[in-house]
Amino acid sequence: MIIIAEKLNGAIPSCAKAIAARDEAYIKDMAVKQAESGAAFLDVHASVKDNELDVLKWMIDTVQSVTDCPIAVDSSDVNVIIEALPFCKRPGMFNSVNGSSHKIDAAFPILAKPEYSEWHVMALLEGENSIAKTAAERIEVFESIMSKAKQYGIADNRIHIDPLIEMLCTTDDEEGISMVLEIMRHIKTNYPKVHISGAISNISFNLPARKFVNQAFAAVAIQAGMDSAVMDPLSEDLRAVIYAAEAMAGLDDFCAEYMAAYREGIFGAKK
Amino acid sequence: MIIIAEKLNGAIPSCAKAIAARDEAYIKDMAVKQAESGAAFLDVHASVKDNELDVLKWMIDTVQSVTDCPIAVDSSDVNVIIEALPFCKRPGMFNSVNGSSHKIDAAFPILAKPEYSEWHVMALLEGENSIAKTAAERIEVFESIMSKAKQYGIADNRIHIDPLIEMLCTTDDEEGISMVLEIMRHIKTNYPKVHISGAISNISFNLPARKFVNQAFAAVAIQAGMDSAVMDPLSEDLRAVIYAAEAMAGLDDFCAEYMAAYREGIFGAKK
Repeated sequence: MIIIAEKLNGAIPSCAKAIAARDEAYIKDMAVKQAESGAAFLDVHASVKDNELDVLKWMIDTVQSVTDCPIAVDSSDVNVIIEALPFCKRPGMFNSVNGSSHKIDAAFPILAKPEYSEWHVMALLEGENSIAKTAAERIEVFESIMSKAKQYGIADNRIHIDPLIEMLCTTDDEEGISMVLEIMRHIKTNYPKVHISGAISNISFNLPARKFVNQAFAAVAIQAGMDSAVMDPLSEDLRAVIYAAEAMAGLDDFCAEYMAAYREGIFGAKK
Repeated sequence: MIIIAEKLNGAIPSCAKAIAARDEAYIKDMAVKQAESGAAFLDVHASVKDNELDVLKWMIDTVQSVTDCPIAVDSSDVNVIIEALPFCKRPGMFNSVNGSSHKIDAAFPILAKPEYSEWHVMALLEGENSIAKTAAERIEVFESIMSKAKQYGIADNRIHIDPLIEMLCTTDDEEGISMVLEIMRHIKTNYPKVHISGAISNISFNLPARKFVNQAFAAVAIQAGMDSAVMDPLSEDLRAVIYAAEAMAGLDDFCAEYMAAYREGIFGAKK
């Protein structure tokens, strides 16, 4: 599982407070904790109304002062991301584009440049103006993104697809999460090198005891091909379920990695 | 999820001790606890070398003195089960038969009788002399059991199939649990009224931090059609993951049952 650590995000109240106070200690501490807990990327999202680029630069500089963990530069504004890429000392993740051509046509030419050839990119299966409501529509968005990626020479293994994980509590059509699973299986079958990703905790929005919903979703999604996730790497129980689910998906012979993770104290340690 | 509660079993050391001492309080307490925690059946397994039928009778009588929860009469000896059925005051579960004709031909004529028409039966997908090693072989055993059930007029919704859940830690073929999932999907597709069951905790045998492996398995198996399980109903975290997984499988519109279970304190209560 490629973990994109989610805790450096101004949408989280404690992080927003740290950003407002330019509290370097908070940012550093969270960066180190997440990096040491198995993050492949540290997502950095300012989530501020004014001076987003300045805040992003301060966050990125602060993170890079304490860890070499690659950064996922996160903004809803594709141009802010593009301007922030040079702040990063090493290849990270462009987070994110979607099916809209203005984002793709801004981002992909940059990612096609030799100096950004090791960067990954997160692509959400949103359409130009709306969220597609069926698997077929989202797969259409996916195929259009892949077509553009091919055109720009962006390799499949640099691409992480977020099929849009929506909250379970509004599901009323007897289908459960079958739409998301269908998209995941389509990608896994047709583009085995593309990473299948998404924000795990979205599934449990507005529900109590969210950790159990997140755990159940991770297990089912991994079986369908998910191999990347925006998540909290500090959640030991979720990490444990992910290791177990990977073994069930045939990705961990004799549970060697599960047992190594347990021995290393990644999960299951006595509290 | 139809919960077949597993804790009244002489193979569990504390229960074996209670059986040896004819400790009625232990049996009663465990029966009540499991019944109150959502068990649909209380499995009763003597697991003793001598006087199995006498011990089974004592256990069944003791259980029935405190709860009306139906009993799953459990023995590896099909004739012991048949002799114990009359001890039960109400319809329960015959646990178990398998693909061997001596078990089927002993059990099914009894289960076909009007006085046992409300009994359920657990059938393991073991062959006559060995454990089938492929999905195709186990499905063959399944089809032979269903053919016999049809012959004796045992309705599909009385039948619980255990596809044989084996320990994950010996899995080395890059397939993970795909064989078991394939069998589950075959049953769900072809016999939608047959219950798909099994002993959840078998999956985590010989692994540390077993609860996470059990949780991941339950989530994935429910997605594949599992709707019955031999398990510990006292395990709140597993119950929570099961409720969440059922919602993801489209069995709980708007997560109403998940939220009701949370409100009732079935899981997620502050410790």
